[in-house]
Amino acid sequence: MPPEPFFAGPGLDRADSLRADPDKIRGLAARDDARELVWEGGLPAIGSSGKLQWRPASGPALFLGIDRAGTPSFCGLQADVAGGPAVFSLLGSLDAEDAPLFATALSLARWHSRHRFCANCGASTEIVRGGWSRRCHACSAEHFPRVDPVVIMLAEHDGKLLLGRQYHYPPRRYSALAGFLEVGETIEAAVARELREEAGIEVTDVTYVASQPWPFPSSLMVGCTARALSGELKVDHGELEDARWFTREQVASALTDAPSGAFQAPPPHAIARTLLEHWLAS
Amino acid sequence: MPPEPFFAGPGLDRADSLRADPDKIRGLAARDDARELVWEGGLPAIGSSGKLQWRPASGPALFLGIDRAGTPSFCGLQADVAGGPAVFSLLGSLDAEDAPLFATALSLARWHSRHRFCANCGASTEIVRGGWSRRCHACSAEHFPRVDPVVIMLAEHDGKLLLGRQYHYPPRRYSALAGFLEVGETIEAAVARELREEAGIEVTDVTYVASQPWPFPSSLMVGCTARALSGELKVDHGELEDARWFTREQVASALTDAPSGAFQAPPPHAIARTLLEHWLAS
Repeated sequence: MPPEPFFAGPGLDRADSLRADPDKIRGLAARDDARELVWEGGLPAIGSSGKLQWRPASGPALFLGIDRAGTPSFCGLQADVAGGPAVFSLLGSLDAEDAPLFATALSLARWHSRHRFCANCGASTEIVRGGWSRRCHACSAEHFPRVDPVVIMLAEHDGKLLLGRQYHYPPRRYSALAGFLEVGETIEAAVARELREEAGIEVTDVTYVASQPWPFPSSLMVGCTARALSGELKVDHGELEDARWFTREQVASALTDAPSGAFQAPPPHAIARTLLEHWLAS
Repeated sequence: MPPEPFFAGPGLDRADSLRADPDKIRGLAARDDARELVWEGGLPAIGSSGKLQWRPASGPALFLGIDRAGTPSFCGLQADVAGGPAVFSLLGSLDAEDAPLFATALSLARWHSRHRFCANCGASTEIVRGGWSRRCHACSAEHFPRVDPVVIMLAEHDGKLLLGRQYHYPPRRYSALAGFLEVGETIEAAVARELREEAGIEVTDVTYVASQPWPFPSSLMVGCTARALSGELKVDHGELEDARWFTREQVASALTDAPSGAFQAPPPHAIARTLLEHWLAS
């Protein structure tokens, strides 16, 4: 079984066969039990219980799906959607079962807030398919929400693990190297390219471990391991402040989160931590 | 080792550290040995040898990278980019080593042809980063080429494999089920959702097998297997003409490509075929 990162899980039944029928979506939104997410500070509000907060649906804007009790669940359009590191500290309080829904709503609302116009012709677009696409009034092009694949990986050599520091990291933090997968690449090719570019190493045996939706704004993190052919690093300091090899003992000490650990490990909601835990257990 | 689908491979050195410097890109394009792809009928031209065709670079439009001999390689902007099933028959003649470059150029050129305006504000955008993004004149938003993850999977039950037929398939063709991964989903969740929606089955043990860039227009095919909890199907005929279980013998007979095979297998350039071959060999 692959490990389960934060944000992973089934979430709602997306009931995507209903999306094509605007009457059905409107009918669901008009039901007495229809609900929509409460937002606060540019994010789906997280209650003191860690659960997402709901209120009666005000309209059919974005159809998230149907919960186990059969409740139609919506999200309103948001003019301002927050994101990035400022949000990460809130994630510790978010209930794991609600996390996939938080990710879905955040990415979808953010996409609508930044994609109101047609990239093909510049005209305005309207929401269709219950919020799962936008259609251009002028040229009829249809645009779907983006999901941007990112490869994130641990390279191993001689029993040690390669981790790096980005310039904006908190003090002592080291984490897995990562980068966006580009058109024309496999997952395996992207992993090899990123490690070559950022650390100057060649790798083999790229192995998929787990994936994670990362809603800042809409990445799909694809977590892998790889074997480096040599331990000699050539760090790209345009991208990374530092990269170095850590022993199994150092990784284990960091994952205890003690101030005496060899470095500060990535937080529990990051797939980088899942990868480190998986590696240590293997 | 994961199997290698068509379009997989290292391709060119993308030399992405050069992209941020317009002077460097212009300098590369001005070199005597700089080359650009020849296009024909909306596609990178494939010569009789199966290799992509080149001519001297006419400008720095889209920087593809640097080949093993150090040659700077470019692609011009294309007003009309072909795609879809009409192209598939040409792929049989394409050299496997050039296939990742064909995929990169086709996806990148198509993205530029359909993303000349800012989705955030509707203004026109200009090419930056050697063709790897566009920036808005008005609101400064930066837009990157799309890569759309698609899950494609074989479900197994009782030694048999689930394959389906889309309405547009050639006669007797059956292939792996597939669908776009959505925001808020892991690869594993998307596989389970697609099989539930299209075939009415619940699955476990979703396992990654291989990935493939699919430049029609810019998908990342993520190939997986899964174990179905039951053999009872409930096919969504809005999506599929048919779906059914095939025995190992039937799959083996189809992969011989003989007219007497149990069905017509997907063609060699499709990752679905790679998945079938991998399953049969395992």
